[in-house]
Amino acid sequence: MIEIVSGIGRMRDISDGKHAEGITVGLVPTMGAVHEGHLSLVKTAAESSDFVVVSIFVNPTQFGPNEDFERYPREIKNDKRIIESAGGHIIFAPEPDEMYPDGFATYVNVDRLTAPLCGRSRPTHFRGVTTVVAKLFNIVNPHTAFLGQKDAQQLAVIKRMVRDLDIPVDIIGCPVVREPDGLAMSSRNMYLTDEERKQASMLYRSLCRARELVDSGVTDSKETINTVNGMLSELDLFDVEYVEIVDPEELTDVGDSRNGGLLVLAGRFGKTRLIDNILL
Amino acid sequence: MIEIVSGIGRMRDISDGKHAEGITVGLVPTMGAVHEGHLSLVKTAAESSDFVVVSIFVNPTQFGPNEDFERYPREIKNDKRIIESAGGHIIFAPEPDEMYPDGFATYVNVDRLTAPLCGRSRPTHFRGVTTVVAKLFNIVNPHTAFLGQKDAQQLAVIKRMVRDLDIPVDIIGCPVVREPDGLAMSSRNMYLTDEERKQASMLYRSLCRARELVDSGVTDSKETINTVNGMLSELDLFDVEYVEIVDPEELTDVGDSRNGGLLVLAGRFGKTRLIDNILL
Repeated sequence: MIEIVSGIGRMRDISDGKHAEGITVGLVPTMGAVHEGHLSLVKTAAESSDFVVVSIFVNPTQFGPNEDFERYPREIKNDKRIIESAGGHIIFAPEPDEMYPDGFATYVNVDRLTAPLCGRSRPTHFRGVTTVVAKLFNIVNPHTAFLGQKDAQQLAVIKRMVRDLDIPVDIIGCPVVREPDGLAMSSRNMYLTDEERKQASMLYRSLCRARELVDSGVTDSKETINTVNGMLSELDLFDVEYVEIVDPEELTDVGDSRNGGLLVLAGRFGKTRLIDNILL
Repeated sequence: MIEIVSGIGRMRDISDGKHAEGITVGLVPTMGAVHEGHLSLVKTAAESSDFVVVSIFVNPTQFGPNEDFERYPREIKNDKRIIESAGGHIIFAPEPDEMYPDGFATYVNVDRLTAPLCGRSRPTHFRGVTTVVAKLFNIVNPHTAFLGQKDAQQLAVIKRMVRDLDIPVDIIGCPVVREPDGLAMSSRNMYLTDEERKQASMLYRSLCRARELVDSGVTDSKETINTVNGMLSELDLFDVEYVEIVDPEELTDVGDSRNGGLLVLAGRFGKTRLIDNILL
């Protein structure tokens, strides 16, 4: 069976050993409750890295005070089985007390890119993400890290951090994996009621409609966004938070949606917050 | 002659090569204009590390808008000669444009420890220091880094950052090196006029007097601080910014100055800001 490592020192020793042997290390950082999206990351990592580390850590610093840290699903036994079957070699599951010891005071902040989109409703979220990812990179010391495109803003922010701080890790963004009806895989989908789950398929349908519009020659981002908003407004259980077309790296508004803009959306079914995106 | 490397990629390649050969790498980060204090760091590094990298980078992000970034001394030719004689093996002197490329947005912040003391008058200083040191650590990948105790708050802040972000670098704090009259070595001492320079010897004399008081049984920090303030107030060209007795790691006020408190002081001769400290 695949080993679960919890000690930071032990994880570092294992990785140092691989480096010394010339073995390439890939990291898939997760919060556990793994689904097909994570598995796709692990499989991609296993194709290009000799040794695949999957971290599982429900990171307290990326949850806001009224968010779902406590109820976030923890299913390590199940995760272990699935990760092994997908080609993962080791699970790094550190303890919160070792990751954030008494007196902890250091945060990595990416300015600018963290202000718009999800940053507006989750002002401390990305600071928590970049801090824990910087820590994981320092502990695991991977050659390559594999992240989902589903969290498009997170991916852009982490790429910016890696470039700015000269962190020697290649970041690979991997395609969104979807349910048969198009809903993007997320550990939070399990919070949805049956009726919410049905309505949730509209998110991807609205993204596809946006791409059709752009493909058919619509150039004004506002028109595309209005169409998406119109479709989402048909869902009586869903509250839209934002629908925007942005530059995929800089996350700034793109007025003309033909040139590789990224349509991003976020909203809530009750307390369950969902995000999705599509490259136009 | 010792090589000066400016490219980040080249510096990384050199360090990777040393690591692969099992050679230990030591880093002495400086802003150049090296003096006996820096030399002491380089010598200490050369005693314990196989390969000593001295970085020279006048880091723009650690200077405030009205500080001395422009006039900070740059003397790389002289630096090169001195560093070589002290046992340094390579100088890493990156270009500002490569260290802070267009769109740079990421900063490492150490909270709490950066608020008191110098943080009050230099609110963005430590953010610049921790960010550039994190970058240097990622580029040079040293086993050990050597820093002066003179910048006591900086040393505490960097130690906290390294611990919190799990950066695999040992931090060695090295003793303050002083002029014959006791003035702590600093690249900024060259800004002093003759008369300011004469008065500046009082800083260390006041620190020594504080230690005498504590050694003779004075326990109340206030009494010791008052004595130091009294001595400094005799200097008509010096404006005291702070005199405090703090915990050397946490930088919190220590009411009782017997138990290893650190007496720290800062002030200005005209525009020239000086700091010093002594362990009680």
